[in-house]
Order: sequence, then structure tokens, then C-alpha cells
Amino acid sequence: MANGLKRTPGFFDFIIIGAGVIGSATACYLKKALPESRILLIDRYHTAGAGNTAKSAALFRNFFSSRTNRLLAGSSIKYYLEPGTKVQLDPTGYLWLFSKEQWNASRTAIHELDPEKNKFEILDRDRIADILGINYQAKGHFPDVNSGIFCHLCGSLSATALARHYASLFKSMGGEINFNTDIKEFIITGQNSCYAPWDNVFIDGIVDQKGNTYNAKEFIVATGAWTHDLLAPIGIASGILPKKRQLFALKIENNAGLLADSTSTIRPAIILPAGGVYIKPVFDKNIIIVGCADDLGQPFLMSDPEPDPLYFQRAIEPVLNHYFPELDFILSLKWAGYYDYHWPDMTPVIESVANLTWVGGTSGSGIMKADAIGRIAAARMQGHKEALLADGSKFRVSRLSLQDRDVEKEELII
Amino acid sequence: MANGLKRTPGFFDFIIIGAGVIGSATACYLKKALPESRILLIDRYHTAGAGNTAKSAALFRNFFSSRTNRLLAGSSIKYYLEPGTKVQLDPTGYLWLFSKEQWNASRTAIHELDPEKNKFEILDRDRIADILGINYQAKGHFPDVNSGIFCHLCGSLSATALARHYASLFKSMGGEINFNTDIKEFIITGQNSCYAPWDNVFIDGIVDQKGNTYNAKEFIVATGAWTHDLLAPIGIASGILPKKRQLFALKIENNAGLLADSTSTIRPAIILPAGGVYIKPVFDKNIIIVGCADDLGQPFLMSDPEPDPLYFQRAIEPVLNHYFPELDFILSLKWAGYYDYHWPDMTPVIESVANLTWVGGTSGSGIMKADAIGRIAAARMQGHKEALLADGSKFRVSRLSLQDRDVEKEELII
Repeated sequence: MANGLKRTPGFFDFIIIGAGVIGSATACYLKKALPESRILLIDRYHTAGAGNTAKSAALFRNFFSSRTNRLLAGSSIKYYLEPGTKVQLDPTGYLWLFSKEQWNASRTAIHELDPEKNKFEILDRDRIADILGINYQAKGHFPDVNSGIFCHLCGSLSATALARHYASLFKSMGGEINFNTDIKEFIITGQNSCYAPWDNVFIDGIVDQKGNTYNAKEFIVATGAWTHDLLAPIGIASGILPKKRQLFALKIENNAGLLADSTSTIRPAIILPAGGVYIKPVFDKNIIIVGCADDLGQPFLMSDPEPDPLYFQRAIEPVLNHYFPELDFILSLKWAGYYDYHWPDMTPVIESVANLTWVGGTSGSGIMKADAIGRIAAARMQGHKEALLADGSKFRVSRLSLQDRDVEKEELII
Repeated sequence: MANGLKRTPGFFDFIIIGAGVIGSATACYLKKALPESRILLIDRYHTAGAGNTAKSAALFRNFFSSRTNRLLAGSSIKYYLEPGTKVQLDPTGYLWLFSKEQWNASRTAIHELDPEKNKFEILDRDRIADILGINYQAKGHFPDVNSGIFCHLCGSLSATALARHYASLFKSMGGEINFNTDIKEFIITGQNSCYAPWDNVFIDGIVDQKGNTYNAKEFIVATGAWTHDLLAPIGIASGILPKKRQLFALKIENNAGLLADSTSTIRPAIILPAGGVYIKPVFDKNIIIVGCADDLGQPFLMSDPEPDPLYFQRAIEPVLNHYFPELDFILSLKWAGYYDYHWPDMTPVIESVANLTWVGGTSGSGIMKADAIGRIAAARMQGHKEALLADGSKFRVSRLSLQDRDVEKEELII
């Protein structure tokens, strides 16, 4: 080409940018529905699910107050039971602990949920004490432990394995994948000559780090935390912003300081009532992985990608020491990634402008909803009004759009 | 101080960052309500209203479909009639032209408005032809002229004069102003030692380009298009993004090509039915100022601050040539500024986190709403539930918040 850019052979029907859980699931369901289409999945890393997908705690839960969130997560979890061990699914359950104040604030939302259908039990302090060796008394910043929710349809899986599962299904159906391909910019029609408002403006191609261009009829951006930085320069406000997420792996001698009965097979993930601290047990490796919720002061930016040991010392260690005084641990590993917050309502978005669609804003619960989001995005790309989810339920595609958004406020936020 | 920063004397009750129309009006009404408070208004430029306020076309209108927008603009315009010539108010009226298709799309919204109360008339093509020497036929990208709205409570003023008016009222009541002061960062409590989620995090101070710090109990950010860049680093998603706005001043020989009767005293601002092109006449200087609406491709970024003559040639000149074939003009001046779009609903926002409040997102209609927004922001800072607007109406402060937002979708967008 005259400007020195190299054009890759062929013209795709769809190009999906980002092979995290969301992009890979979307590619998979789109190819499944349109086997004759030429579809390209692109990722900057060497494999699927190697970006922020890999940096997540990869816990999953079906326990949300919002009907939309319950549908997205519940149907996705139902699907994940199928590949099961292939995605390292471990349905340990969640034990979500509430202080008296938190319980009073959440009680109404919880009592509206059907325990039978959503597979959870409400535990009082005695039943919590049967499971955990926990100090339930308040002290300083740390409130009491008053009630708990044991959610049976919760647990953990391997987020990278899940993304790879979808990417390999996609490939087995004839989908094309370009790894190590970092998309740097969009080519817009008329850009070189400055277009007018009545021009039919659309995305003509995308350019990678080596200057290769890729052309398609439709582009799908599933770039998670990078979405704002990619779309703002072409005038699209996605409402998706990055926020740093830090995780810390702690070596423990044994589980005695955590569980009431160290031989018990009930070994749930735990959400503590202070600072949003959560614990993912990996007892077969004598490890627990802990994370924590953030607030004012944590930038909405691709800022420092390093985990901060001081953050562990100040925001997590005191919480563990308070609630599990008998637990001995040593900080062994730490890493940081980015949430992709759709900050207006913390619920995923699928929206289009011209021939560009973005899928994201999973706001910390993307892995547990990826199957449903992939199906809904694929349905939207086919022009369908409804998507069929893994549990057989139907989901109106426009509910996740910005134009005709129809989602509920989530009351059960960690 | 140990870190070499210089602390300015004193500790303010309120610091308002940004002396554009919004910040200056807020400072004015806050000082008026709390004369004993120590209030500092800060701006990076040498005078009030010298930033993007000065780059606006400074047209005003009360003609909106959203009740909120009508209240904000209508009451503000009522106030502007008072300082009148001091703010160079020129109530020329607007003549908003609609194609048949646009009219059919907007008709329902327009017919819900009371012409008496909102002081507008619906004009047919003949009555439009009495005022303008316009070509009403469609051709190519340019639709027909089918109907018009003549709004009497519309016109233009000097945006800089308006900001200065509020700033000087503020100063006359004992308010303090620091010009040439560019705020670069916020100091957050505990930032140096990394805070925990249960910490009581708040803004301790702000730092300018010279390293001076300013301390206050409450901070108000009225930085318009700069809001995202200022707040994202401290973890606040304001939803306010910048978008470039370009204006072009054209020298004309006389008004004969524009007006049907060049001696007529009816000389309205004009909105054309193609490309969102609008015309602000400054006939006493033989100038018309023209602008245009943008879309996909115009970055949501502080990108190129220069106006693009190619944009004039491609997006504006053909529109003028089509609708006013007899008009001769020469491009004489051009400039660019930034809109501050609150993109989720294009309606202003007043929201707080800890001791920081942001006021903005005026989305292209800030000057015509500044008085009401200043009153509402001042009411919020005093903890009032309602603000008293210039027309005597009461406005529930939380309606412009993000938490309890209650605004209507605007149907009448240029």
C-alpha cells in the first residue's frame, strides 16, 4: 500500500480483538452459529486468556440480587459444569460472612431470592463456627460476624483454561487466530481526508504493532480494561474504565487456623465482613489466595501494574489476623491485573456504533458470566433479538446495550 | 514542609477549581449564601472564563424537550436578562430549521411544549422564506427545509463576560481568587503510606504547577473538559469526557445572501437541517460564526487543540453553499475548544465522593444553564435538598447527582 502498511490476505466477516474469556466465548458462539463465516480472533499475548483474565482470582458465584446478573452467572456456571475438570472447575461453595450491620442492609435483597432455586443456605453464627475457626467478635475497624450465606453453586475454576477451552473450540470449527498481535489503532473511512457529519463513517481496518492491517465487515472489541484507551481516540465513550486488582498468595502450614475441623470436606471460598477481603483456598498446595476491594484513590487508569506489598500489610493482613488469629501465613506470591469496570452500573455492556461492537465492562465478575455474554454477543452480531443461554432461558440482547439498557442495580457487592 | 512543597497560608472552607462559567457561578452563589466562609476560586488562566468557556459560540436557548434542561436553561436565561448588556446579552432569537424527516421525528416532543410559556412559534416554509433567503430544496446529503421553530427566548451573550460577572460578584463579597494557578494533583490522606478500605479517605489538599499546596474542608471541581483527566487518577469515574469543538468566523460582504429582507430587525441565530451546522450572526461586524456537530471519529480526548480548515471545507462550507447559494463568505478566523460531554445522558452532573464534589458535564449547553447549575451546586454544598432558581422555581439537588439521578432524555439535539 502507498502508506507502507502491509495488508493481511483476505477480508474477514468478523474480527474479534481480545482472546480473554469474553472474546474467546464470543468467537466460539459466533463461529458455531455461522460456520461459513470467516472469523479472526486476535490477541496481543501468545495464548488465549493470558491478559487480565489470567490475573483474576477466578472465583465464580451465582449469588446476586440483580436478576440480570443471576441469569448471566447462573446459566454460565451451568455450562462450566460440562467441561468440568477441563477448566479445573472446583465447586467448593462460597461462605459469605456478614456483620450485623451488613446483614441488616442486605437482608431484604437476600430474602427475595429463592434458596432452593439458587442453592444457598442462611447460616447463623453457630453453624458458621462449625465450618470456620473464626473470631466472630468486633474490634476496631473490623465488625462482628453475625450471619453467613453458604452458596453451593459457587467455587473456582481456571480462567485461562476457560478462555483456551473456547478458543480451541473456535479453532476446531475453522476459526482463525492470530496471537502476539497487538492492535494499536483503527482505520476509519475518510479519516485521511476529514469526513463530514453526513458521511457514512465506519471502521475500515485495524493496525497491529508491526503495521499490518486487518480488514473485516464487523469488528468486535473484547479488550476488557483496555477498552477506553482503544475506543476514546475514535470518539466512542464505552463507560468501561480500568482499575487495578491485586492478589496475594499466602503459604500456610496447614488449614487448622482456618477450618473448624481440618479433616472436613467443606472448604469454601470465604468473603470476610471487613474491607471486602476474600479468600480462595488451594489447600492441596497449602496456599490461600487473598484479595480485597478498593475505593477512592485507586486510579481509573492503566497505572502501576505492580502489586504493592504495603497494600497487603495495611489492607489485608490485619483482617486475616483479626478473624483468623490462629492462622500462620507467609506472603509467597503477588500479582496485579485490571478490572474492567462499567462504572455506571457495574454490569456488562454489549453495544455497537457503525460496524464496531464492544463487549465488556464485566466489573469483576466476567469469568463467571463469560458463557452467557459470549452467547448474547454472538446473537447480537447475527441481528437476533434474543439469545439462548446454557440453561435454556432466553435473554433479550438489547438489555445489555447502552441505548435500550435494562439491568437492575446490584445490591450484593463484595 | 518536609517534602519541599510550599503550603499557602490558611485553610479554606471551600476551594473551587476552575473559573469558567460553572465554577464562577458556583463560587458566587456559595459565597452569597455563606458570607463568613473562606472560599478560594482557582483558575489556570489569567482571568475568569478564559478556558473552554471562551471557545464556545455562547448561544443560548430555552428550547429543550427535557423538563430538566428547560428548567436549568429557562431560569438561567431569566437571570441573564438582569445583567443584560454587562454580559453582552443579545436576544436575537433562534430559527431552528427542520427537514420533513427531522420534523416528523421531533414533532411529538415539540407539540408537548407550551408555545406561550416557552415563547416559541412554529413556522411553515412561507414564513421561513419571509425571514431567510434560503434554498429549501433537498439535494444530495442536504435535506429539504420543511418547518421551523422561532424561539424568542434565545440568542447570544459573551461567555467570558458572564464568567467574569460571577467572579467579580464573588470577589466583591470577599471571595478570594488565584489566577494562573494550574492544579496538577490531589493529595489524599494516607496516600503516602497506602490506605486500607476502612480508612476514612478524603482530599487533604491540591497541588499547583509550582508545587504550592492548598488545603480546604471541601473541594469543588468545575474543570469542564479536564474533569476526567483530573479525577480518573484518584479513582473517580465522572463520566465527563472532552470532545473537540471547532468554530469558524466568516467575513461576509453584507447580509443579503442570508436574510430575505436585509433591513429587517429579525436576525436570528440559525440551525440548519444538515450536519448540525449552526450560524451565529454578528452583522454589525459583517461576520457570521459557524459550527457543526460531530460524531464517530472525533476523539474523546484532549487531542489536537487546533481547528482544522479541511473540516470547514468538507463539513460546513457545502452546507452553507447549498442552503444560502447567494451568500459570499471568506474564512477569516477559526478556533477550537472542548465540550465536556456527560456522555451517558448529555445532562449536567453534580456529585460528591468524600469531601470532593464535581460540577460539569454540561455537554455543549453549559453557558445557557450556568446560573441554575451554580445555584444547585451551592445548595448541595450547604447540604440543602432543594435549590431556589432565578425564576422562583425549586429544584431538587439530587436530580443532577449520579446516585439518585432523575433527568429526562433530551429529544431536541442539534
